[in-house]
Order: sequence, then structure tokens, then C-alpha cells
Amino acid sequence: MAEGLREACGVFGISGDSEAANLTYLGLYALQHRGQESAGIVSSDGQTLRAEVGMGLVAEVFTEERLKHLSGSLAIGHNRYSTSGSSDLANAQPLLARTSRGTFALAHNGTLVNAKEIRNWLESEGAIFRSMMDTEIVVHLIARSRQEAFEDRVVEALGMVEGAYSLLLMTEGALIGVRDPHGFRPLVLGRRQGAYVLASESCALDLIDGELVREIEPGEMVVIDRAGIRTFRPFESSSPAPCIFEFVYFARPDSTVFGRNVYQVRRRLGERLAAESPAEADIVIPIPDSGVPAAMGYAHGVGLPFEMGLIRNHYVGRTFIEPEQAIRHFGVKIKLNAVRASLEGRRVVVVDDSIVRATTSRKIVHMIRQAGATEVHMRISSPPITGPCFYGIDTPRREELIASNHSVAEIEKFLEADSLAYLSLKGMLEAVDGPGLTKPEGHFCAACFTGDYPVPVPPQEDLSSLKDSAAASAGEPPSR
Amino acid sequence: MAEGLREACGVFGISGDSEAANLTYLGLYALQHRGQESAGIVSSDGQTLRAEVGMGLVAEVFTEERLKHLSGSLAIGHNRYSTSGSSDLANAQPLLARTSRGTFALAHNGTLVNAKEIRNWLESEGAIFRSMMDTEIVVHLIARSRQEAFEDRVVEALGMVEGAYSLLLMTEGALIGVRDPHGFRPLVLGRRQGAYVLASESCALDLIDGELVREIEPGEMVVIDRAGIRTFRPFESSSPAPCIFEFVYFARPDSTVFGRNVYQVRRRLGERLAAESPAEADIVIPIPDSGVPAAMGYAHGVGLPFEMGLIRNHYVGRTFIEPEQAIRHFGVKIKLNAVRASLEGRRVVVVDDSIVRATTSRKIVHMIRQAGATEVHMRISSPPITGPCFYGIDTPRREELIASNHSVAEIEKFLEADSLAYLSLKGMLEAVDGPGLTKPEGHFCAACFTGDYPVPVPPQEDLSSLKDSAAASAGEPPSR
Amino acid sequence: MAEGLREACGVFGISGDSEAANLTYLGLYALQHRGQESAGIVSSDGQTLRAEVGMGLVAEVFTEERLKHLSGSLAIGHNRYSTSGSSDLANAQPLLARTSRGTFALAHNGTLVNAKEIRNWLESEGAIFRSMMDTEIVVHLIARSRQEAFEDRVVEALGMVEGAYSLLLMTEGALIGVRDPHGFRPLVLGRRQGAYVLASESCALDLIDGELVREIEPGEMVVIDRAGIRTFRPFESSSPAPCIFEFVYFARPDSTVFGRNVYQVRRRLGERLAAESPAEADIVIPIPDSGVPAAMGYAHGVGLPFEMGLIRNHYVGRTFIEPEQAIRHFGVKIKLNAVRASLEGRRVVVVDDSIVRATTSRKIVHMIRQAGATEVHMRISSPPITGPCFYGIDTPRREELIASNHSVAEIEKFLEADSLAYLSLKGMLEAVDGPGLTKPEGHFCAACFTGDYPVPVPPQEDLSSLKDSAAASAGEPPSR
Amino acid sequence: MAEGLREACGVFGISGDSEAANLTYLGLYALQHRGQESAGIVSSDGQTLRAEVGMGLVAEVFTEERLKHLSGSLAIGHNRYSTSGSSDLANAQPLLARTSRGTFALAHNGTLVNAKEIRNWLESEGAIFRSMMDTEIVVHLIARSRQEAFEDRVVEALGMVEGAYSLLLMTEGALIGVRDPHGFRPLVLGRRQGAYVLASESCALDLIDGELVREIEPGEMVVIDRAGIRTFRPFESSSPAPCIFEFVYFARPDSTVFGRNVYQVRRRLGERLAAESPAEADIVIPIPDSGVPAAMGYAHGVGLPFEMGLIRNHYVGRTFIEPEQAIRHFGVKIKLNAVRASLEGRRVVVVDDSIVRATTSRKIVHMIRQAGATEVHMRISSPPITGPCFYGIDTPRREELIASNHSVAEIEKFLEADSLAYLSLKGMLEAVDGPGLTKPEGHFCAACFTGDYPVPVPPQEDLSSLKDSAAASAGEPPSR
Repeated sequence: MAEGLREACGVFGISGDSEAANLTYLGLYALQHRGQESAGIVSSDGQTLRAEVGMGLVAEVFTEERLKHLSGSLAIGHNRYSTSGSSDLANAQPLLARTSRGTFALAHNGTLVNAKEIRNWLESEGAIFRSMMDTEIVVHLIARSRQEAFEDRVVEALGMVEGAYSLLLMTEGALIGVRDPHGFRPLVLGRRQGAYVLASESCALDLIDGELVREIEPGEMVVIDRAGIRTFRPFESSSPAPCIFEFVYFARPDSTVFGRNVYQVRRRLGERLAAESPAEADIVIPIPDSGVPAAMGYAHGVGLPFEMGLIRNHYVGRTFIEPEQAIRHFGVKIKLNAVRASLEGRRVVVVDDSIVRATTSRKIVHMIRQAGATEVHMRISSPPITGPCFYGIDTPRREELIASNHSVAEIEKFLEADSLAYLSLKGMLEAVDGPGLTKPEGHFCAACFTGDYPVPVPPQEDLSSLKDSAAASAGEPPSR
Repeated sequence: MAEGLREACGVFGISGDSEAANLTYLGLYALQHRGQESAGIVSSDGQTLRAEVGMGLVAEVFTEERLKHLSGSLAIGHNRYSTSGSSDLANAQPLLARTSRGTFALAHNGTLVNAKEIRNWLESEGAIFRSMMDTEIVVHLIARSRQEAFEDRVVEALGMVEGAYSLLLMTEGALIGVRDPHGFRPLVLGRRQGAYVLASESCALDLIDGELVREIEPGEMVVIDRAGIRTFRPFESSSPAPCIFEFVYFARPDSTVFGRNVYQVRRRLGERLAAESPAEADIVIPIPDSGVPAAMGYAHGVGLPFEMGLIRNHYVGRTFIEPEQAIRHFGVKIKLNAVRASLEGRRVVVVDDSIVRATTSRKIVHMIRQAGATEVHMRISSPPITGPCFYGIDTPRREELIASNHSVAEIEKFLEADSLAYLSLKGMLEAVDGPGLTKPEGHFCAACFTGDYPVPVPPQEDLSSLKDSAAASAGEPPSR
Repeated sequence: MAEGLREACGVFGISGDSEAANLTYLGLYALQHRGQESAGIVSSDGQTLRAEVGMGLVAEVFTEERLKHLSGSLAIGHNRYSTSGSSDLANAQPLLARTSRGTFALAHNGTLVNAKEIRNWLESEGAIFRSMMDTEIVVHLIARSRQEAFEDRVVEALGMVEGAYSLLLMTEGALIGVRDPHGFRPLVLGRRQGAYVLASESCALDLIDGELVREIEPGEMVVIDRAGIRTFRPFESSSPAPCIFEFVYFARPDSTVFGRNVYQVRRRLGERLAAESPAEADIVIPIPDSGVPAAMGYAHGVGLPFEMGLIRNHYVGRTFIEPEQAIRHFGVKIKLNAVRASLEGRRVVVVDDSIVRATTSRKIVHMIRQAGATEVHMRISSPPITGPCFYGIDTPRREELIASNHSVAEIEKFLEADSLAYLSLKGMLEAVDGPGLTKPEGHFCAACFTGDYPVPVPPQEDLSSLKDSAAASAGEPPSR
Repeated sequence: MAEGLREACGVFGISGDSEAANLTYLGLYALQHRGQESAGIVSSDGQTLRAEVGMGLVAEVFTEERLKHLSGSLAIGHNRYSTSGSSDLANAQPLLARTSRGTFALAHNGTLVNAKEIRNWLESEGAIFRSMMDTEIVVHLIARSRQEAFEDRVVEALGMVEGAYSLLLMTEGALIGVRDPHGFRPLVLGRRQGAYVLASESCALDLIDGELVREIEPGEMVVIDRAGIRTFRPFESSSPAPCIFEFVYFARPDSTVFGRNVYQVRRRLGERLAAESPAEADIVIPIPDSGVPAAMGYAHGVGLPFEMGLIRNHYVGRTFIEPEQAIRHFGVKIKLNAVRASLEGRRVVVVDDSIVRATTSRKIVHMIRQAGATEVHMRISSPPITGPCFYGIDTPRREELIASNHSVAEIEKFLEADSLAYLSLKGMLEAVDGPGLTKPEGHFCAACFTGDYPVPVPPQEDLSSLKDSAAASAGEPPSR
């Protein structure tokens, strides 16, 4: 239950279908798990860009009327989580910019690590920002570029930023997809009849009867327009570092990202965990829904029965009113309830994908024990999280991550579990690649587990407090 | 995937807690699966009844402000599905009636089979109805009773109606719970600290830290007021006939209803199905979420691996906008997606709880096959549904139920499945009771499977078309 | 500034125009001054009655979509002020009742004085009321009538009620208008092309290009259906007593009610006031807007210049937020501002139509003096109001009416005016009738000025507190 | 009835009152007639600027909650009409800009004539605009200024723009008011207890118990902060040209603008019109409300009775649904109704302030005649409007102004009036100044009557179509 970790965004774009906005709406719906706070679509009919953006889930934001307004055969869309608490329509995407050189829209999944520095410089030059989003600096950099062609202006702008971006851009006539040189966040290319599709995950293609063509590669830019599809590699090469946590928790199990099916990877993580840390017990239960595949793999690995010992309530609203009288473990109970008939008198292994702050996990251990379990053994299908993410995931500050300052033995004690075991780093990397594959560890970004950050991050480790930044020297762009 | 079958309602009441409305709100949230169209709460502070009712989910209807308005230590609440398409706030419950003899509120789970007849008679006497709900006749009958005590008026009123009712009533100072003589729908009694609770299912007690005391028995009426709790048996005895479909599909797996844990019953249904109808295959997959326990039981019974071959999207909104271009199996795809990596090249058994119209099941078989399955064997953990329910479940008309006019072989062909098997009636009844129990078949209402209806139903088999009824003879109550 | 007095309602009905609902919407808009709290329309296409009712002004309640829903060539509508503070959609009209004998709708302007008595009896018989409106008893009485024809049932029902009613009723095929035997409230009959119209005032006819035919007479009932228009006089005759306050304040100046143009009557009231109570002064100003015609008549009568010394702001919203720091005379200032350039150094006569509580009048006198007037003489174009209305106007309780317990000299002192004079009763009655007409005083209801109530009112003088009424004897209708 | 002419805005600011936002809300309410499409307030507590802006009337936009949010003792507010049909929240004011040099807000009444030129240049430099408002260029110019002090940056920015501006600016600690060198639009300085107030008209001071200190003079800038109030004259001097139409139509009659009470000026316009163009008739009536003072002056001048022959309905909503069947003169009837009893058989002079397109005036002449008038003489208390305004009033294009291409005789014929007369230019200017004053004609801007525009306007006479402008040469600011 990786709560406290939230994917920052999902993106979807399509070119060449007369119902572009409707299909983008469906694509965003399939990517809803990547961001639930705002949703937006911008469409083009070849001449005019139209935008509809709102707070809430895709199915709440878009009415038939709003979709009808989004005419044209080209569209991009975006689902967003707020980062840094700024839950505000002004921060919703896609961004739409009107400049003397034309109008364009932009949808971004990722985080730019040098955003504050560039923003300071742009503001000292008179630029006026309307949001707190790092993404908005890309808009200003494009507007200021003196290059002629739009794609050249995009390349010039992106040449100044560092960090994680799987980015969709759109003009009246073209759809552009770019992935940063490390390829932190996923972005796939698909087809649907005569149309090209770009999406964060392949599950968005399945819903619209599309088919997966391939991944956009790290550092690659594709331009889709009337001339067809063209590909560029405008950025200096880096070692790829796709985010391994997409497998552990973020991506949907039915998706293919970074070339692998997520469900199968999760099962293998559970099997490997069983091999590394078996437990003497009667049943294996998952924390639903994210822990289910790993728990199945673990149960199979240790040869114990797999049971549903916790039932999830899927009607959870965004705000929940708690009585003044304390209800024990209210925050967990509102989502999960124990099945006493399954747990009573049993020794239980409970499998989850990760532990962030451990407060929720502790409540779950209690809940299982209260339902009559005689022993509770917790197994985690990834290593301890010791550092925050700076590349597109909203994580708590380092000091709130329990594994950043506690040993596994200390966490086990805090959870009041009979035993606790994490999957090893080596185990995770081998399980991701599946049996037989032998790739070096560095193939993925596992910085939140290892502290080995592929792109240097600002010393203060805080990208959100843009307001109180020291003024940058005016007149010159910050050097890279 | 028993779509097309919908539970008509969930009810919850509590007496003796200063946060009665807040706890009712949580109770209704736990019972959300029993009705998602409207939600309402009426509270009493001993002098005044206050009501808040709205369309939508519990978490949507109730704001903190609305809950604050509902002061007092006594409250009842209701979740509702619309039946007969009348999705209208006027049909939401609890109903609140102001009469010269005082004010009372009422929340009903069930259906009254002689509603039309009684309504005709009441209208001929000058009664004015404000809704199309059968429940409103109980309000009028209570208002017309010349008995002194409120509970006597309730008994007189209920003495005239027939059918299914698990009913909560409330005056300024008393909470009353009644279950019809056959006990079609569940109703449990619980405690929470000093307060008494009545709820459709025990899962509502779990969320509020309450504990299950016992079931309200068929034909029993309990009155909870300052004097404590009193129990009555005002109605002529009948043979109990609790609805077996609560186990098959409706109730939440973590609930205890009719004395049994639902999850365990479902697992046993799957195990029994394995014994009756094994399949030669590679993996067993459920149709999530309702088919999961039975699929686990089936997989265990036949000794095959249990896998998640279909992933459910839980963000489904109530209305979904479909593109004009047909997307294949759109209605299913919006909820489920196949995991190709799990299904490709495999012989698959897919387990579901029931088949209603079969159109959805057919789409699912196709979806699994398109994802690469070499064989698809469907197994259903209940017998064929051959008739509609008249006791509180919203079912399609008889002719829409595929098993009412097709053999299993014909359905198998329609589904384009490699094989199809249902659980036998005997198997279902034995599995519900668990190993070792030997009770006669008549213990449950299984009318939708057997056609044996415990309470006679009107010949036209249509309880919803109240409008065009012939006028009853005026001046006399209909004889029973 | 007759604030504190509020007309209870406006009604409008039309039969025989394919755009019945649209024309009713316009009619209600023209009658907006008679009620601003809720608005509603019910239409019929000959088979089905459709209703749209909402809180607020006509132009706020009705969207194009809601009007489109109201199909058919027959419609009635209603504007309503809340009486007794019960601002609630449940109290909005028209009322729609579904009975076994058919569906009908009802819109009422007036107040029934024996409502409480009849309601008690109906409730003791088991009737369930959904609102606090006296009008709802008419609905129940109609529903209980055993007469065959709808008009006979209406007559039987109205035969039991006493008080003021200008009533529109409607079935699928007929429009009925009735005025109580005293004819307290106005109701006119008009024509528009082939259609018949019934409306509270003639200004509603002007807006829709209709023409005034005649008044519905006191005690008359007209039935408009396919057979044309028929008229009846079902009630025992009484002496007519139309409300004289319609001329003083309520009706629109461009309307004709009770056979006279309202603007001309108001001018004559001012002229007569000038004859009775001239003032030595420099200018005459009105309290806009209601005091304008009388002030013009007064200025003409005394031969002084008529000036606008107070400007009214017409953007007043329904709730206005006042700063915590007291602003002097805030409640008046939000509506009126003095024109210093007109008032400074002048002796000013300010003319208003009536004084209710006198608190507002006192603030206005201060405001005029602060703007530099050297003398302020107040003239009122009606006699002192000494008693409440029980026939359709919402008035404060007797003790809040300043003239009920203070002499003119005391009121003059309270207002801090240099002089105060009211029009005499004789003067008012003669001015209403115009020069040359000599009718006896009793022709109008002037009970609020004279205390001579044409229909006896309950001793407690409180028709609103229906809740705490003593239970009536059951089983028998109250005798008249 | 100067419909078709609409004031573009009202502004209000206050510094030094702990309830700054509440008082601004009241000030905007008093200025509601200057703009009814959107309303906004920005407040400062010395550290943070907070904004609340919405579509609609002041009383609709601001709830108690929104006002509470606007803490601090400094605030500015704005009422706005849309110009060029762009009714959009993005165009609402005050504008709020966050720059690296601090945050500021801005509220503008007026129009900048070189906006398009400057915008083109700014966009070519990479500036991104979020609205179509000319006002936004001031924001960008301030953001780009390299001056240190905020007031110097404002002066530098305003030094580049030309046209009409009565402008309020605000930082965390200072309130600034500026009026353009010609002083087209009004702006007054007031006091309220210890606080300074800036407002478009003096009526805003009256409502909050403030007092008028003086006008801000053309070309003057005042800065109000902790140091008190300072005044500057940063711009090259011009000949003042305040808009004479404020007297004719725009300003509220109870306001003092440009040193004169508006109501008194309007009366004098009517008196002068009587002297210039008397009519042989029975009564004089105004077109309410704007024509009332001039009609009173006219009636007094010619010695005829002043009557209300047309009644205005003040409940007009913003959109009104018209039946499909044509209602004669619907657009006029929805606002005005004739009083037949006043008009029948009379020779009528009808007085209005101005004629724009003449279509409405024509309908009114018809309406008066239909009500029985034997003659209809129209008198207009200003000269013929022959050209559009480019300084802050939203006027139709030149060709839609009837007097731009028709003689008075032709207009008279079009109106089907028995006679038509306008006030002469000389008469208007002398009446504005009152008896005894002898100032040269050039003292006011009367360009819409004379064609003599004080600030040159672009040849295409179209300031609204910013989109399709030719690209300006990049890199250099446009020369003045």
C-alpha cells in the first residue's frame, strides 16, 4: 500500500481520428490511476485549439457537451495529481499558450529539476507566470525561442531543462511526443486504424481498440503531422534510467511499460520474495488491490493457500467525514475490512508492494490480529524506500520515509508484526527482468531505494518552494 | 457478473449515540453496494426529526454541513437503487411523514407484492401519494390507523401488506426494526458502546467499531427506546425464506448474513462447482470483483493455478460517453481489461457468480480469446436463473433472463465458450450450509432458480406499473 | 415604502395556445412584484401534466430546457412570497396532485382563515400533508370529494373553506378560475388570439399582446375547456370586499385591477392628500419607486416643484453583506441615496404610500436632513395601518404596526419629521373611486385601516403556527 | 435610452481600513451601473495579495466566505462590461500579476488606443498573454521595466500607452491611482474615517459613509501607503477632455463627477431642450429610468404636466426567453409597459437622453401610440451621436449609429414620430456648466457628437480585433 507515493500524471495524445477528443477522454479514463485531481483535453480542428479542463476525475470533468466542443482530429489530454498541495485549477494541464508565433498546448508527466533556477531568470526578464507548475517554464522557453520551426523551438527549450519529462505538445496541425534522455517516465506509441497514439501506458490503447507499436525511446522526439511520423534524437545521449517503481506500484497491472507486462513482473517479485524470505504460516493474503499479484506469486512460491483476508471498499470519496469519537484505525477501515472467518486462528502472511511511512501498515497488522490471526508476518515485494523521488513522483520528505532512518528490525517492531522482510535490491532487479535475463543493475532508476540519483538534484532537495527563491542574476540564461 | 440484478436497498439505524447521524453516514457508506442512486438520513434529537436526502453516493450526498444539521442521538439511513427506471429524488428514502399523531420516518429494504391493490384502495379513499414507491403505502396505512401506540399502528399497517420488508421506523424517541415473516432480506442487530444498531449487513458494524449481536428473526419486531430494547412477534408465523442470492452476489464478502460469512460461502460454492464440473485447463481466472472467491475455491478444488487474467477499472462513472465509432465490447472494456501476458496460449477457466442476460458474459469470453487464450471454459457458481425476483431485487423481465428460455447447451453456444457449467441447486444449498450441515432445501428462497415463490405474486408479474391499474372498489380495504 | 407588507402571490393561466408555458413564463415575469421567492409552471398536453418549480425569480428558475419540457397548450403558473418564514421549495406552487381520479394542479393567491381547523380534521382522518401551506387543504378536500365531475369536486372543496382565494386549477383538459365570494384578491380574464387567459393583474396581458376582457367577479367560477368558456356562481353571495391596498401599494401602476388603473388612482390619492394636508415647503420628492405617482399628484395639488431627491439602486440582491463596523442607516442606504444638490437648503415634502413599522421611514427622514434639507415634512397617501391582513398579504403582527399603538403625533415625533400627515379613510375611498363616483365605504376591504374584517378571523390572530394546534375532534368535518 | 452604449468599467480602492474588502464590495455595488458582467476584488494584508473574481453582479459574485478570504486593510475592486463580446472570466479584473519583483494588482476603466501595436511588439519578444484585454499590456510593461521603485515602473509603463485610463494599482503595501493626461474617465478621492478611498463616482463614497475630497486631476498619480498620500504629475500635460456622456447617461444621478452633480446637470439639459425645442402637447413623459431628470426639466421648461406614461420592470434577467410566435416589440415590452390611462387621447412629449440605433426608440413611439396617444413628439437631451467612442465606452460601429448617416428629418420619419428634436451641442455644453459659467467648448470630450477625437485613433477604427493584426517588427518598442 504505497500511499504517500503518488504518480504525478498521465498523458495521452492522438492524431488522425475524427473523434480525437472522445478517444482521448477514454485514454485518460484508462490512465486515471496516474492522476485523479484534474483532467483536461485540448483539441485541434486544424485551425483552432479548444480546451476543456476541470478539477476531478475524467468522468466527472467531461460532459457530452464539453466533449462536443472539442472538435477536430488531433487532441492531447492530461490527468494530474497536485504536488506540493497546490490543488488548483490554475495548475491543471494541458497548458494552452497563445503567442504571436501561434498557439500550442502541452501536457507533461515528470518533474524538471532545474525549474526554479530557470524560472528566476525568466522572471527577471519580465516573464509573468500564471501557475506554480515547473511545466510552465517550457512554455515560456518555447515562446522566447527565435527558431523558425515549432519543433526547433521545442528542442531549444528542452535543451535548457533537466529532469524527467514524457511530454506531449500540439499545434494546430502537429502532435509531438518527447521523452527525456534518461527516459524516467514511460511513453508508448500506438496505432488505431489510421491514427497515431501516444500514451503513458499501453492499457490506454487496449480500451480504444488500439495496438501497441513500441516505446518512445529515452531522448527521442516524434513529430506526427500530415507528412506522417518522423523521429529525431535531438538530445545528447545519456544512460537510460526508467523508473522501476512503475513496476512495483504505479502502472496498471494490465499495462506493458518499458517492454514488460506489469502483472507478470509483480507476480515474479512475489515469487522471488518467497524464495528469499519464506514464512511458516497457514495462509497468504494481499493488501488489495496493489498487493494482489505479488501475494499470489508469494503464495505460489511458498506453497501456501492464497486467501482474501481483507476486502476493499471501492466507493471511497475524496474527503471523508470522521466522527468526533475516535474510531480505531479509521483511515484504514474506510478502505479495508478484515474477513474474520478467513483469519481467525490462522498464522497469516500479508504481502504488500512497499512501505512508505508505515503508519497505515501498522494499522493493518492490528486489524488482522483483531480479526483473530494468531501470527502476522509482513512481506514487502520491493526494498526499503530510503529517499524521495525528484523525477515525477510525489513522495513525502526524506525524514517521513520510515526506512530512511530505521532498520528493518526497528520497522518490524513498530509494525508489531511477528516478522517483516523486504525483497532485496538484487532480487527486485532480477525479477523485473525475468528468468534468464542478465542485465546490469544500472538499467533502471532505483534512486528511491539506493540514493543513486541519475540527474543531480538541488541541495535543498525541495523543488516545490518556488516562491522564496533567491533572485537569479538577470540578463543571462542559467548555464547547464 | 450479475449485472442486471440490483439490490434494491441498504438500511442502517442507531439509537443512543450522540453522533448518531455521523455513524449512520459511515454505516451507509459500508452498505453502498446495496444501492448507489440516492442516500438519506433522518435524525432525531428527541423532539424534532431532521432529514437530508440526495441523489448519488453517500460520500457525494453528505457534506459536513448537512451532517451537522442532523443532530440527535437517534438516526436511520437508507441507500437506494431505483427500480423501474424512476430515478428521482421523490423516490429517495427515508420517507418522512408529518401526521396529527406525530412525525415519523421510515426506511425500507424489500418489495411489497400487494402494493398496487392497497394503493388503489387508499387513493379511492382520498389519499394523495407523492411518489411511486410501494413503501409509501405503509406510511399511509400507519397514518390511518386508529391505534394509540405507534408500534401498534405499525403492526396494524404491516398486517395489511405482503412481501419482503426489512424495515426501520423512527419517531422522535424510538427506533423500530421489523423483518417480514419470511425474512427475505437480511437485518442484523449490533451494539456499539451504549448504543443499539440495526443494519442490513454486519460489515456496517465493523466500520464503526460495533459488534454483531444477532440477526433480527423473520417476523420479529424490535423497539428500542429509553426503556431499552423490547422484542415482539406480531405476525402469523411463516416458513423462513431468506434470499440465497445474498450469498451468491449481493452481500459484501466480509459480511455475515443469515448466520454465515459470505466470503467463505462463496469459496465453498467454487469448491463444490469444481467437484461437480472440473475442466481440463491451465489456469483459473475470476471475473472481478464478484467472481473472485468462487474462482479461488474452484482453482483450489481442481488444483489449477489461480491468476488475475482480467483487471477491473474502479473509476467507472455513472454515465460513460461512447464514441460514435463502435469500439468492440465497449460496455465491458470500460470496466475490464485482459492481461494478455497471463492468458496467451493458455486454456482458461473463467469463473463468475451468475449469468443474467449473457450478453456481457459473451463479450468477456471474446475478450479472453482475443487476448490469446486457446480455450475458454465458463463456470458459474450458482444454478441458471429462470425467473425474476419479486422480493426486493431489481431483475429484468422473465423473457430477458437467458436461462428462462434456453438450455445450458444453447447458452454455451451463445457465449461461444468451449464449455459451460452451472452449479447444481443441490450443490448450492449444501455449499451454503457448509460441510456437515443437513438442512432441507426449503430453508432459503431460491425462487429465481426454482420458480417456487414463497409469497404469491400478481399474475401479470409486474409490480412497477402502478399508474395504469384498474380502480379498486372504494370504501373497503382489499381482503388479504 | 410599505416594506414589511408583502403580496403573497401572483397567478397566471392560459388555455388554447401551443406555447402555453412560454406565455405563462412571461405572464409570471410581469407579475414578479407579487412574489419573488419561488416560481412554478405546470403544463398539460391533454394527457400528461408536467411541472417545473424552483426557488428564485422567474428569470432564474426557468431555463429554455425547463420551458421546453413544459409542452402543451394549457398551463398555469405561480409566483410566491414565503409567509411565516418558511422559505422552502416544498411550499412552492403550483401544487400537483396525483389521485386515483386523475391528476390536477392548483395555484392560489390568498389566505384561508379556517385552514388550521380543516387541516386538523383531515390529519385526524389519516391525511398526510407535505407542506405547511393552507392551499394544500384544498388539494386534500378535492381528493376526498365523492362528486363525479372535477368542477363539482372543486365546488364541494371550496364550500368548506373560508377566506381569500383567487385560485387557478387545471386538469389534463381544463383550466378553472375561481374568486372567493368577497373577491379579496384580483383576477382578470383576458384573450390572446384564440386563447383565454386568467391573471392576477392586467399588466400580464399587456406583455403577451393580450387584451383585457373583464374581471372574474367575486364568487364566480369559470371553466375553460374544449367546449369553450362557461361561468358559474356556486357560492352563496356575500358583499364584495376587494383589497384597497392593491391600489395603495401592491399592484403595478400600469395594471388595471378592480376596474381602475392603478397609476391614476395613486395620483388621485396624492392630490387628495395635498387638499387635506398641504405643506409649506420648497419641493416635493417621492420615496421611489412606490411613492412616485402619489408624490406627483401631491406636488401638482400644492403647486410645488416635483424633484427626485432620492435615487434608488435597482441591483439589490436578496442577501446583502454588511460590514462589522456599523454604517449609518445601512439597510436604507443599500437601496436609496440622497441627491444633496437637490435637497440642500430646501424645505422638503417627502411622500410615501404607507408606514408599517416606521423604522425605515425614520432613517429616510434622517438621510434627507443629512443631505442638507432644512425641513422634512412627511405625507402618507393612505390612512394609518392599525391591524394585520388575514386575506393574502404577509403583514407583521399587530404590535409591530406603529399605528396600532401610537398616535400620529407620536409617530411624527418618532420619525423626527417636522410634520406628518396621513390621508383620511374617507379621502382614500373617494380618491379610489375618482371624482363624481359616490359609492358606500364598504365596497372595499380596508380592514388593515379600520379593523372591520369582512370574514371573521381566529381569535389568536395567527394563521401560521399550524404545528402546535390542538387536535380537532376526529371523524367529522368542522362546521362552518 | 442609450442602449448599445455601455460603460466599460467601475473601479474602487481603499487603504487604511481593517474591513477594506467589505467596503470595496459596497463601493462596487454602488458602481454596479458601470459594469454588470464580472466583479472582482484583490486585498492585501501587507504581505499577501488575495483575489476573488467572478462573472455576474457584485451581490452574486461575493459570498460572505469569499469576502472573509479577502483579509487586510488594503483592497481594490472592479466591475466590468465585456467589450467585443468576449464575456469570459479570463477577461475579468482586477488583474493579478506575480513577478520576480513582487506581486501587484490592477483595475482599469478606459481603453488604450495603441494596445494592439504594443501587444504585437511584446509578443514578438516572447511575452505570453492570457487575455484579450488591452489592460494586460500594462501588466507586461510593468513587469519588464528595469526601474527600482514600483511607482517608477508604473510611470515607465504608462509612458508607453495612449488613450483613456482611470487606473488603480496595488502592491502589498501601497494603493496607487492614476488618471490619463486627458482625464477621459472620472476618478475621485475620498476619505472614510482614517482611510483613503479612490472611486469612479462619488455615489460609492455615500454608501460607505465616506466624504468626497476632490477629483484626481487629469495626468495625476497619487500614491497612498504608510507614509500617507503623495501626489505626482509624471506625464506631459495635455488639454483635459473629460467625457461629457457621463453627464448625459453613464454616471448615477446622485453622483458628483467632474465637479458637478449629475442629476442637476440632467435637469438643466431638459430645461435647455425645452427652450430650444418646445412642443405643443398635453403631457411630458420620460423613458425611465435614464430619461427622468431631463423630462422633469423639460416639463418644467415648457410648463406642461410631467407624467409617468411608461412603467419599467426592474426584474429583467440577463437572458430572456422569447416565444416562437412573435410578440410585437418584445425587446422593449420586457422592460417597459405603457399606462393607457395616462396616454389615451393625449398629445405626448417623450424625453430620452440619447438615440443610438433608433430601433428601440421607434418601438417606444409605437407603444405610446398604441396606448392611445394622439401625437408623439420625441425630444433628446443631447445632440445626435455621429461617431463611436474609443476611450472606454462600448459603442456600436459607426455605420450602426443612425445619426452618422441620417439627418434629423430622416430619423424623425424612421421613428414615425410627429416631431423629433435633439439638444444642440452649444446648448448641451452650456447646460453642463450651468447658468453663469462661461467655459470654452473644448473643455469636454464630445467626440461622439463632434468627431473631434482628442487622442488619434487607429485608422481601422477597431481596437477589438487583436488577433488578426499584422506582426509588428520584433526587437524594438513601437515609437509613440
